[in-house]
Amino acid sequence: MSNVQAIHAGWIIPVEPGDHVLENHTLVIDGAQIEALVPSADWRNPGNAIEIDCRRHALIPGLVNTHTHAAMALFRGMADDLPLMEWLEQHIWPAEARVGSREFVRDGTRLAAAEMLLGGTTCFNDMYFFPDEAAAAAIEAGIRCVMGMIVIGFPTAWASDVDEYFRKGQAVHDQYRGHPLVTTAFAPHAPYTVDDAALKRVATLAEELDVPVHMHVHETAFEVDSALAATGVRPLHRLHQLGLLSPRLLAVHMTTIHDEDYELVARTGVNVVHCPESNLKLASGFCPVARLAGLGINLALGTDGAASNNDLDMLGELRTASLLAKGVAGDPCALPAAAALAMATLGGARALALDHLVGSLVPGKLADVVAIDLSALGTQPVYDALSQVVYAAQRSQVSDVWVGGRRVVADGTLTTLDSDELRQSAAAWRDRIRP
Amino acid sequence: MSNVQAIHAGWIIPVEPGDHVLENHTLVIDGAQIEALVPSADWRNPGNAIEIDCRRHALIPGLVNTHTHAAMALFRGMADDLPLMEWLEQHIWPAEARVGSREFVRDGTRLAAAEMLLGGTTCFNDMYFFPDEAAAAAIEAGIRCVMGMIVIGFPTAWASDVDEYFRKGQAVHDQYRGHPLVTTAFAPHAPYTVDDAALKRVATLAEELDVPVHMHVHETAFEVDSALAATGVRPLHRLHQLGLLSPRLLAVHMTTIHDEDYELVARTGVNVVHCPESNLKLASGFCPVARLAGLGINLALGTDGAASNNDLDMLGELRTASLLAKGVAGDPCALPAAAALAMATLGGARALALDHLVGSLVPGKLADVVAIDLSALGTQPVYDALSQVVYAAQRSQVSDVWVGGRRVVADGTLTTLDSDELRQSAAAWRDRIRP
Repeated sequence: MSNVQAIHAGWIIPVEPGDHVLENHTLVIDGAQIEALVPSADWRNPGNAIEIDCRRHALIPGLVNTHTHAAMALFRGMADDLPLMEWLEQHIWPAEARVGSREFVRDGTRLAAAEMLLGGTTCFNDMYFFPDEAAAAAIEAGIRCVMGMIVIGFPTAWASDVDEYFRKGQAVHDQYRGHPLVTTAFAPHAPYTVDDAALKRVATLAEELDVPVHMHVHETAFEVDSALAATGVRPLHRLHQLGLLSPRLLAVHMTTIHDEDYELVARTGVNVVHCPESNLKLASGFCPVARLAGLGINLALGTDGAASNNDLDMLGELRTASLLAKGVAGDPCALPAAAALAMATLGGARALALDHLVGSLVPGKLADVVAIDLSALGTQPVYDALSQVVYAAQRSQVSDVWVGGRRVVADGTLTTLDSDELRQSAAAWRDRIRP
Repeated sequence: MSNVQAIHAGWIIPVEPGDHVLENHTLVIDGAQIEALVPSADWRNPGNAIEIDCRRHALIPGLVNTHTHAAMALFRGMADDLPLMEWLEQHIWPAEARVGSREFVRDGTRLAAAEMLLGGTTCFNDMYFFPDEAAAAAIEAGIRCVMGMIVIGFPTAWASDVDEYFRKGQAVHDQYRGHPLVTTAFAPHAPYTVDDAALKRVATLAEELDVPVHMHVHETAFEVDSALAATGVRPLHRLHQLGLLSPRLLAVHMTTIHDEDYELVARTGVNVVHCPESNLKLASGFCPVARLAGLGINLALGTDGAASNNDLDMLGELRTASLLAKGVAGDPCALPAAAALAMATLGGARALALDHLVGSLVPGKLADVVAIDLSALGTQPVYDALSQVVYAAQRSQVSDVWVGGRRVVADGTLTTLDSDELRQSAAAWRDRIRP
């Protein structure tokens, strides 16, 4: 079979350079890489290329879901409309204690990976237990992933103490070294669950292994206020003292940012990962994305886990991000369509230090590509394909998805996993989990 | 053909009485009406009933889109990310001046009606020009509608002065009197575009004709502040002086509510129509829905026009409403799933004085029913069908829709209008509208 695929697209939105839209262009994939973007009228089949008709579609770079707890897809809709601590203490943690296991992570991550691919997400940055098992599920699904080497100051089914978290995490790092789909990041859970000694070790090892650091930071005002009351220092400043504020850090949530913190975040090159739907659902606060963007801070986008969202729909999330940024800033020009799409693609890739490989449709990058059918009535008429993708398209309009040149969704169907089997597995877990 | 349809559903969410979910029940439709909801195990086919298998589906009442400018679907994505006045003055109004016509309203309303039905909306409350033409398009599509007798203090293609607006509006009222799908409401555009004399006439005539009054009220802080500066009175108080605050009024947007206004709105029985996505996109402010709900004020939900949303997706809108209410109230228990669904169905029906006919799945009401397929991976597993409908389901999962017992969407396909023809029409209008 040929290694060359030519996708004839109505519109291509490459994300870089600039925020232009190419009309009637062909994206040529050779093996795992993007070879060229050329006007369709100028392209000739060399004889061996497979041609794919996407003339009613817009092509975008694969979406990068920069904050997930993928396996928690199996908890979707188990408990809603509850105060945060009641939700955690009476529902999520007891369920995790009861069923959290290697098998749970495998099946939950398979379900999540399938949902993400079908919605145009080609890469996810995960923080959960049994990351080796999650990586295996992602590889089976054919999705790119960054697996968190989780560190947390209490025992779980994955590890009994901090030493074991580090040891097991680094074993995962070694296991997947050089894998085409899997990289790793340190994932210390949050400032309030990881002590100074462990955080210093994260800072040192992240340099040694040259990996990102993925962490919940300033998720709520309560977190900041209680740290301040207990220690006299805001978590962000503590992380700075420990040497963690750098371009390696993905600070997730960041709903509570004091005036003097903006300059610190900008100066140290920290990446902010925005999770608007989870922040809304848990009433965690509003991340000031327009102000952060104005300072040149790199922004990425995540869904968080399906237990607090309740989907892993990055197209929906980027739309919420764009709308909410305008409302919060009081400015209808805040986070315009192109910036929202960049946040959901290149911004995530940059935060994960993968932007030399993915995040935009540029010759030489890996072919992580998503085709969105704009012929649905809800995206008619098309004045501007970018506007339709950001403000009107639904994930059900994602028809085809390529990860590293492999077509993992074809005409709306996953080519790697069996959806009926995933449904049966989800139902079986529900029956085990439901009290 | 039989007039009896029996829908065997995995879950039925009737919305009233209470917020319970019925599992494995059958909804029986006789002619235009709901006859019964019975456990599927107890139901026997009398011989003539058509049986429909929705065992993977949840049935909900048809969604009521309580604020639209339907024909503006043809402007979808024409101009985004702009300040409000630049958007209106340089894009929307010039386009309306150039192409606003009977034909535009017919074709735009057909497109909007098709989009709405496919997404589970069975009734819409419209405010636009040529309401007679919009009603004809709605009837053709098979969707229920409330047509606004628009009144605005400047000439348009529909009418040249206030007298003509009233005359033509009442002619539409007379034309559709007794129609099974069409009712009317007065639709004075906004406090700042309609003078006191015309508003008094609206108040008087609304009583005489026994119809609702549909109006933009307190859409932005700017509107309230400039009225206060010019007249010394807030628009809401002016409307009160003119006798318009009553259960007839649908006050749309209401992002700016002073402390002392809450009691006034509650006491006078005004309905508040929340349009969260439009409010976010135009940075109009945040409607305090949790506080309004706490006072027992009736809440309805609308998408607004597709020029400022950019879709007519009520399932997405009710999810945004529920999430945003939590964020704005700082309370994860605000506007829980059942309340959000009630706002999008029974709340709208009540605001439109149609709640004796539609808005919930109760024997004797008209059969406006929507089936949502929950077997998609993004709504798996199902712990709670209500949670899946509100927090995870997408409108693409709407498979079947009945309006007054007529199945207008069957297996995801519209039975009344031709989608290809709608696409061609939309493309032709785009070519005329685009400068």
